[in-house]
Amino acid sequence: IADRKNGDLRLMMKEFHYADIAEIADELEVEEATYLIKLLDSEKTSDILAEMDEDMREAVLNNLSVKEIAGELEELDTDDAADIVSELPKDIVQKVISEIEDKEHAKDIVDLLRYDEDTAGGLMAKELVQVNENWNVLTCVKEMRAQAENVTRVHSIYVVDDEGKLKGRLSLKDLLTTSTKTHIKDVYIPKVDSVTVNEKGEEVAKIMSKYDLEAIPVVDEIGRLVGRITIDDIVDVIREEADKDYQLAAGISQDVEADDSIWELTRARLPWLILGLFGGLGAAAIMGGFEEMIAQHAILFFFTPLIAAMAGNVGVQSSAIIVQGLANDDLKGSVGNRLWKEMLLALLNGLILAILLLFFTWIWKGDLSTAMAISISLVAVIVVAGIIGTFIPLFLNQRGIDPAIATGPFITTSNDIFGILIYFWIAKIILGI
Amino acid sequence: IADRKNGDLRLMMKEFHYADIAEIADELEVEEATYLIKLLDSEKTSDILAEMDEDMREAVLNNLSVKEIAGELEELDTDDAADIVSELPKDIVQKVISEIEDKEHAKDIVDLLRYDEDTAGGLMAKELVQVNENWNVLTCVKEMRAQAENVTRVHSIYVVDDEGKLKGRLSLKDLLTTSTKTHIKDVYIPKVDSVTVNEKGEEVAKIMSKYDLEAIPVVDEIGRLVGRITIDDIVDVIREEADKDYQLAAGISQDVEADDSIWELTRARLPWLILGLFGGLGAAAIMGGFEEMIAQHAILFFFTPLIAAMAGNVGVQSSAIIVQGLANDDLKGSVGNRLWKEMLLALLNGLILAILLLFFTWIWKGDLSTAMAISISLVAVIVVAGIIGTFIPLFLNQRGIDPAIATGPFITTSNDIFGILIYFWIAKIILGI
Repeated sequence: IADRKNGDLRLMMKEFHYADIAEIADELEVEEATYLIKLLDSEKTSDILAEMDEDMREAVLNNLSVKEIAGELEELDTDDAADIVSELPKDIVQKVISEIEDKEHAKDIVDLLRYDEDTAGGLMAKELVQVNENWNVLTCVKEMRAQAENVTRVHSIYVVDDEGKLKGRLSLKDLLTTSTKTHIKDVYIPKVDSVTVNEKGEEVAKIMSKYDLEAIPVVDEIGRLVGRITIDDIVDVIREEADKDYQLAAGISQDVEADDSIWELTRARLPWLILGLFGGLGAAAIMGGFEEMIAQHAILFFFTPLIAAMAGNVGVQSSAIIVQGLANDDLKGSVGNRLWKEMLLALLNGLILAILLLFFTWIWKGDLSTAMAISISLVAVIVVAGIIGTFIPLFLNQRGIDPAIATGPFITTSNDIFGILIYFWIAKIILGI
Repeated sequence: IADRKNGDLRLMMKEFHYADIAEIADELEVEEATYLIKLLDSEKTSDILAEMDEDMREAVLNNLSVKEIAGELEELDTDDAADIVSELPKDIVQKVISEIEDKEHAKDIVDLLRYDEDTAGGLMAKELVQVNENWNVLTCVKEMRAQAENVTRVHSIYVVDDEGKLKGRLSLKDLLTTSTKTHIKDVYIPKVDSVTVNEKGEEVAKIMSKYDLEAIPVVDEIGRLVGRITIDDIVDVIREEADKDYQLAAGISQDVEADDSIWELTRARLPWLILGLFGGLGAAAIMGGFEEMIAQHAILFFFTPLIAAMAGNVGVQSSAIIVQGLANDDLKGSVGNRLWKEMLLALLNGLILAILLLFFTWIWKGDLSTAMAISISLVAVIVVAGIIGTFIPLFLNQRGIDPAIATGPFITTSNDIFGILIYFWIAKIILGI
């Protein structure tokens, strides 16, 4: 690339898949990537741009003229084109759109811009094959051929009525095996799953993977067919959703990657650390309140990290399993039952751990009553931590808040404080101080 | 169901999608579910069984005769059938297989049983449409019709040579637009992505989602076409993989759900808690070693939960972002660079947090030198925690161990111990004790 050997490079790139070139482009300097994009023809570069990393794409598009951007959009499916347009600076969007030669295509892109990114409307593409129920098979086949030009992969043929309302779908098999004069009305399958434009992306993913669908039609509020969502876009939604939950559990907000700048990473990580800091200050304040015990029972203070760690671990475990159950929609039964079960589970784990702890502490310090006090407190702390860990995500979910924020630092911090408080309080009672 | 109103029930169930009935069946008692399965016809029940929860399916299959199970398998695609057979008790597998009337189908199922569940071979189905390169379009269309009978969804038509080796694919469009006498050899597309039977499921998922494929052919070691994997199975792989990483990060091993028994949940959670317990004992031992400081500087002991929490949080944050980067294959650059970046990041976060801490501790206790000692230690602890959190997953990955185990309790526990050790050590130096 450095040598600008246009001919060789063009030949080489011809062999590569656009997803591979996008990966290479992400590695390059902005000027080099721009040069590469300008070199190749827009049929390929449009796909490369769509696959590239957001930051890199933005930088490259900045180096392209309005006309060049419009040329790229022309080649893309409406959903990918709309995604790129939504990232462009506001002042040039208008210009880019007006440069698109295919006015139908431009109109579709503008239509898609109205929808929120995370809804079915934001995920769908306008490209689809639809036929009118009043047509006969012959007209239908002719129309389909024309429509299929614009559609990369025909998944289903959707049947609509005169008002554009979705009526059902048509199987390719039936179409090929019935006489050409039959009306579509008589052969279509009236059962078809669909989602409305405002459905959340997450819900669409659930529906499509539950029913093993490869494409789903999208209808507007009054049932008119407006687009379709294909499974490859849903795979991205599933991945993003999983990544987001994973990051929240680890105390990282916003969508960051290891290769983002230190500043972006700090913005995603620091707030959770500050939360932890205040939690730690709270714990310190609690321990300060029990200062008078330090002379006689210094050993109690040595075990605070253990208590805090166990409270945190149990809390994260129990909340994670609830968050996951909620995300996969396989949580059944009442909240009461669930809390009861978690209590039994925490009690069982707590007792096993307490016996281990008792044994080691007794051997170490030879002081049975202190060892007993610490172990009994541990059981109580674990049970409370388990119940908090189960309750908080269920409560947040009921309030319509994403329960995923309840795992990670949030639950660890609150359990640290509660755990240490319970620990000193019970130890105080048992040791009779 | 309790009333055994067969007719009504059958009619009602006819309206439901099999995925919905499977969900209902999961909620029922085993006898009720068995009754339901026996009531409906096997075309539908086979799909219901394939969608049901594993534990429930096992229980229901226990109540069915060998002949009934064979009947269900007959209706299923080979990949789903093989999954069910692999769960059956060993002693009846032979009997069930021999009861399957379609011998070709039975042979395919047995073939699939050879492959490991997590490989391309374990994911693929035998149902696909293939044509010989030496056929002409007419023969091809005839053969395809026959083959398509067994295939729910035709994604691609694969082209093989006389030895069964995969040569390329055929587009339906081309097939419909070329003369019937053309040889397939002259129209097929020689470029086709494929995977070998031993490829890991995770890798297949990466390839399919990178290239936006909806089906991928699977070849054996010498390039013969043996099956194909469709995107709906890959969606499950992606979900499972994400769930597994999420659980590991939360300290839950094995694949458990909120509705599993207390015993199963304990087995998945207790080992990590025991790890945490030993970590806590280690921390207690370290603090015991600094016991002489307790009289003069009790406040240092109050801050141990804060130090431990911060070390744990930073460790989890930095390891999670590395684990995710590794999983998504978007980690570039050298290990050295990555450690350097994390160090700068941790230093930045650490300094901000230390200033906050300094401010609060100073106000609270009015003792600047102790406040300084605690804050400076915090910076050191955070930097070390960040470096450990970055290094361990990279190291595990290089060793071929799943880096996902490096998040969660593993990293928290080791960082707790290191953090507390560094903290007391630095505080001791600064305070000149």
